[in-house]
Amino acid sequence: MHEVLLDLDPSLTDWLPEPRRAGAGRQSALSQETLLNVNLNAGCCKDRFWGAAAFAVLGLDPKTLFTKMVNQVQQVDGCWHSCKGDSSAASNSSGESSKESSRCSTPVLDADRIDRLREKMRKRIDSGDHWFSLEFFPPRTASGAVNLISRFDRMGSGGPLFIDITWHPAGDPGSDKETSSMMIASTAVNYCGLESILHLTCCNQTKEKITGYLAKAKRLGLKNIMALRGDPVGDDWEEEEGGFSYAVDLVKHIRSEFDEYFDICVAGYPTGHPEAESYQQDLQHLKQKVDAGADFIITQLFFRADTFLKFLDDCRAIGITCPILPGIFPIQGYQSLRQLVKLSKLEVPEEITKVIEPIKDNDAAIRNYGIHQAVGMCRELLDSGKVPGLHFYTLNREVATMEVLRQLGLWIEDPRRPLPWAVSANPKRKVEDVRPIFWASRPKSYIYRTQDWDEFPNGRWGNSSSPAFGELNDYYLFYLKSKSSKEALLQMWGEELKNEQSVFEVFTCYITAQPNRIGQRVMCLPWNDEPLAQETNLLKDELEKVNKRGVLTINSQPNINGKPSTDPIVGWGPPGGYVFQKAYLEFFTSSENVSALLKVLKKYEPRVNYHIVNVHGRNMTNAHEMQPNAVTWGIFPGREIVQPTVVDPVSFMYWKDEAFALWIEQWAKLYEDESPSRMIIKYIHDNYFLVNLVDNDFPLENCLWQVIDDMFELLDAPPDVLSDGAVSE
Amino acid sequence: MHEVLLDLDPSLTDWLPEPRRAGAGRQSALSQETLLNVNLNAGCCKDRFWGAAAFAVLGLDPKTLFTKMVNQVQQVDGCWHSCKGDSSAASNSSGESSKESSRCSTPVLDADRIDRLREKMRKRIDSGDHWFSLEFFPPRTASGAVNLISRFDRMGSGGPLFIDITWHPAGDPGSDKETSSMMIASTAVNYCGLESILHLTCCNQTKEKITGYLAKAKRLGLKNIMALRGDPVGDDWEEEEGGFSYAVDLVKHIRSEFDEYFDICVAGYPTGHPEAESYQQDLQHLKQKVDAGADFIITQLFFRADTFLKFLDDCRAIGITCPILPGIFPIQGYQSLRQLVKLSKLEVPEEITKVIEPIKDNDAAIRNYGIHQAVGMCRELLDSGKVPGLHFYTLNREVATMEVLRQLGLWIEDPRRPLPWAVSANPKRKVEDVRPIFWASRPKSYIYRTQDWDEFPNGRWGNSSSPAFGELNDYYLFYLKSKSSKEALLQMWGEELKNEQSVFEVFTCYITAQPNRIGQRVMCLPWNDEPLAQETNLLKDELEKVNKRGVLTINSQPNINGKPSTDPIVGWGPPGGYVFQKAYLEFFTSSENVSALLKVLKKYEPRVNYHIVNVHGRNMTNAHEMQPNAVTWGIFPGREIVQPTVVDPVSFMYWKDEAFALWIEQWAKLYEDESPSRMIIKYIHDNYFLVNLVDNDFPLENCLWQVIDDMFELLDAPPDVLSDGAVSE
Repeated sequence: MHEVLLDLDPSLTDWLPEPRRAGAGRQSALSQETLLNVNLNAGCCKDRFWGAAAFAVLGLDPKTLFTKMVNQVQQVDGCWHSCKGDSSAASNSSGESSKESSRCSTPVLDADRIDRLREKMRKRIDSGDHWFSLEFFPPRTASGAVNLISRFDRMGSGGPLFIDITWHPAGDPGSDKETSSMMIASTAVNYCGLESILHLTCCNQTKEKITGYLAKAKRLGLKNIMALRGDPVGDDWEEEEGGFSYAVDLVKHIRSEFDEYFDICVAGYPTGHPEAESYQQDLQHLKQKVDAGADFIITQLFFRADTFLKFLDDCRAIGITCPILPGIFPIQGYQSLRQLVKLSKLEVPEEITKVIEPIKDNDAAIRNYGIHQAVGMCRELLDSGKVPGLHFYTLNREVATMEVLRQLGLWIEDPRRPLPWAVSANPKRKVEDVRPIFWASRPKSYIYRTQDWDEFPNGRWGNSSSPAFGELNDYYLFYLKSKSSKEALLQMWGEELKNEQSVFEVFTCYITAQPNRIGQRVMCLPWNDEPLAQETNLLKDELEKVNKRGVLTINSQPNINGKPSTDPIVGWGPPGGYVFQKAYLEFFTSSENVSALLKVLKKYEPRVNYHIVNVHGRNMTNAHEMQPNAVTWGIFPGREIVQPTVVDPVSFMYWKDEAFALWIEQWAKLYEDESPSRMIIKYIHDNYFLVNLVDNDFPLENCLWQVIDDMFELLDAPPDVLSDGAVSE
Repeated sequence: MHEVLLDLDPSLTDWLPEPRRAGAGRQSALSQETLLNVNLNAGCCKDRFWGAAAFAVLGLDPKTLFTKMVNQVQQVDGCWHSCKGDSSAASNSSGESSKESSRCSTPVLDADRIDRLREKMRKRIDSGDHWFSLEFFPPRTASGAVNLISRFDRMGSGGPLFIDITWHPAGDPGSDKETSSMMIASTAVNYCGLESILHLTCCNQTKEKITGYLAKAKRLGLKNIMALRGDPVGDDWEEEEGGFSYAVDLVKHIRSEFDEYFDICVAGYPTGHPEAESYQQDLQHLKQKVDAGADFIITQLFFRADTFLKFLDDCRAIGITCPILPGIFPIQGYQSLRQLVKLSKLEVPEEITKVIEPIKDNDAAIRNYGIHQAVGMCRELLDSGKVPGLHFYTLNREVATMEVLRQLGLWIEDPRRPLPWAVSANPKRKVEDVRPIFWASRPKSYIYRTQDWDEFPNGRWGNSSSPAFGELNDYYLFYLKSKSSKEALLQMWGEELKNEQSVFEVFTCYITAQPNRIGQRVMCLPWNDEPLAQETNLLKDELEKVNKRGVLTINSQPNINGKPSTDPIVGWGPPGGYVFQKAYLEFFTSSENVSALLKVLKKYEPRVNYHIVNVHGRNMTNAHEMQPNAVTWGIFPGREIVQPTVVDPVSFMYWKDEAFALWIEQWAKLYEDESPSRMIIKYIHDNYFLVNLVDNDFPLENCLWQVIDDMFELLDAPPDVLSDGAVSE
């Protein structure tokens, strides 16, 4: 039993079958460092065939699998409930309810944000619109967490109906650590906007502890629980007094303590649990879990569509009516498959062994076959008409799953966004539909700083005069930490800065995507962790010109006068609408420049609104009423106006703190204390102003570039022109 | 003393000086029917020189005195607080408050709606922007009330800072009668959107009674009180136990019972009260009223600017610092002037008598002189730099006052509206900025039916699913009563209707402004009490065509794709903005037409949203989510989007009741019971559908005419095409 050791992440073992007869289990020794070096710690090997997922390491070169709009119409129907023509349907509406407060505030622009998961499934089943979902496990390190969150964003863009996060008993799974199951699931929901299921295992836990976890999950905005028995610790595990023996107990507990708040998922075993008395007995156990309140089932892996389809029929035959989702895991290596077979007692069908035996030394060929095999099996499942969605075990890897999904036509990277910014999936933010533009490139930071806002009575803060932005302090994931390493950052931003001009060059290289002096491309800035947005590319030439002269831009958008909402670059919202923008420009620049700028801006009254502030909070503006200025809005069929982005003077002061601090936290601290490089960044931090400009005349040509040109012209004029207006304090 | 009898409206006597020594007074016999037949009931003649105002009957032919935009910029500064360039003004705003809920909801689009009257005065004084105000007295009959309300609308369009309504002790002034002082003032505030002052006299009243009046005024949204002693009843008036002796007592009472809720105005006497011990003594009385809490002063009339200016200086000298507004009353007839002199002991200056004596038999000349004299005196007052605003005694007449104001350049009929509909001046509606489009031609009816809404948390109803519209019942002013007489209506709408076609012709004549069969122009319809709006004229040709065929339009607007907010026809809101509209069409039509229309509309999915309902509430729509559809919106510098008009499916059901009832209440009831004419209207009421259509593609050419054309085409097709879709129930 112990000849094969699989050194896999313990979180994978959450997903183990429940021993119906108190099967002995042992905590496995764990290392996630590389899944290529596979050892099987088979202390509870029969329960751990699941761990074979750890073999799924693909050597494929990364390549872009994104396809656009493959199945756009389906997606549209799923996300956007457009007015469907049903003129014969008569409904007396005088007593019907519309939204309680329908004023602009998220008039169900994206119905998905309001529905619970089981409702979303029901709608997709009704419409025949297949879906997929993705399983991840929690990372081991904070750096791993940063990377996983990036992966959530990338894989989220393909349109999974949900993701699930495994429970990692050894990793303090309910804690506030960046790497805990709880925090990763919370991040997926709140910051990545992904509908998420948190796994939860109940063995070796008191009811109080479990209730505490559930309450915390609810508080964090998590809405779905995968209820598992889990992997007992120690060989001599016994039913715990006051604890849980089986997953069914956990399901009952969730329903009893939290009523219908959570959607509950449970595990199914297509070939029956290896230790179950019988396949039929195991089916009955599953039915008990459903009867206790589970909303749907996800199965363990299998090799043949038939296996699942028979299981499905058997479930239906005994009265299990909820959705049953097949767990899909592509074969990805010869050795891993052999080991899996030994461990799990799963029988590999002859048609598979026949193919892979001859190519067993060709890893790439095996992996390609694995994708091929998974695609074929998935097609068979979908074609059966009985399978509404597929669940993929990603092992936190992207390429294989994305390739399978791409070939199935399920990977739908829809460039249209429900709103111009990434919406959070936290239910308490479901009506949020307005944000300040300042955090456009740092949406997670915005959500983090506003996580304590419990109400969005007008689609945003209840009281804009005291919006209670949270402090960033030293929160690792969204503040201090770039996705890039310190070394990479130094290569991009300069090992050594000579003067302010060196900084201008970094900004210019970022804008132009041209290599810097040492041939390195600048892929990010402290305010922008991603390469330039497509939309910003529309402004590239002008941005390059002004950055070269020390107008250090960190946010901008062009004016848009009624483009279709389906526009691939600037579009958002449901089809059939029109989107609009006022031109926006935000930058750091020197006090000398600001002196000239203020003179120039007088010529642009009241066309241009401005806010100019330094790190000390010295603030100059011509928006004296301190009202928000809508800079992005959309007009849609049968709806109220949506205005998702505003320049809000009050929150600008909170953004200002963050924007200035990023100079120090992300850039200056790359250099030695007292080093000239650090002093240069510090000088900019202390002396530059943060400026935002809005051109209110959106139907006309953007005048903001002319404003900057005029500023440069004034600066280039003989010195007496400027003599009366220094801004320095 | 009794030789001259002035049969004047008793409300005029509210505005009498206070006898400091309990001067005897008597209730005058009253008739307002014609002010030309002047008799002076001089029972309290010394107190009643004021009554001479009753002479002010002008024989001038009505002519349009409206001038547009004479002084637009001033008006703009007064109403719209545009972003003024003051780039040197630095303000640290991080702690500054913006509006509590700034989301769309009336982001102080019109600051006047929020300020109290004394604040508005202060701002106008600070800006040097002169104003005028107008006094009216309550009418005697309900018909008179309907006419006076029309006058409020017309005179309100010239931009008075406020109007005031006299207290009519004999007319049950605090009652709910349509003619009471209280109701007329409430109507001016709530339905005409005019800042209004309610007069209140305190003699012969208990404190409880006065408190009751004040509480009611507050409840109705009245914010300003003119505190007067009033005209004692009976010859033997004495100070009442537990009552009030002087206006100062009333001022104190208001402040003590209602704190700062009301702005309080008191009366000043430029030549001193005739019965006062001395001019100086009278000034001291005035100072006491101000010290007791009055916010500003309006004076009785006078003949020379010097008289007022001396009075003003004397007031300032003894420490009266509040605004003091001169009461202006043009001379309008020789006899009336003579009588006034005898009554009031006011001395007519020689320069006036010298001019009018030679022309004393030429009424027109006298009246013209009166205007000339008033204009000259007003110019002198304004040029002094000490007079911020002028108060006019209109005697409920328009022409003379408007001519004086026109010549002074104070009559500013600004075609730009703060919102596309008439805002209410009730403070509880100050944040209202969204209304359903259905009541566009019946704004007073909308306000009436929503008068109980105490909160507008999103600029409108708090809960759109149960908006609690009030019943119209038989409310006279806004529902049953057209401004036209029954005879006029019959001439316009037909003494006898032969068939539905007769009704189509009435609609067509209204739209085209062409005379009907008997040569009469149709100036109104039950749903539109005014001739066609300028904006609707843009659609005239199409409207004519469809009405002729029984598509009986009652509301429509063209699509607008970003016209300047200053556009004279479709503009609204502050300058520098852009306004938009979706095309809208609302009409009654037969069930046969609706059958065809529903087929046609399938071709226009999802471009056109529709709601179709009959009197029984049978409802067909393609807006299944029952969300409001914004059909008018505006984008302004430095502001959030404003979307003042929506097609709201829920309130459409309330409008439906009203729209169908108007067929019966205003039209059918013109005819005898069981008469064919009445039966025709009744048939339409019972069988037609009310339809509204929105073309969501506002940037494209309005397709709604094409929809109707397609409907006609289908109706004209061979019968089998229609056979499968009758709508009849």
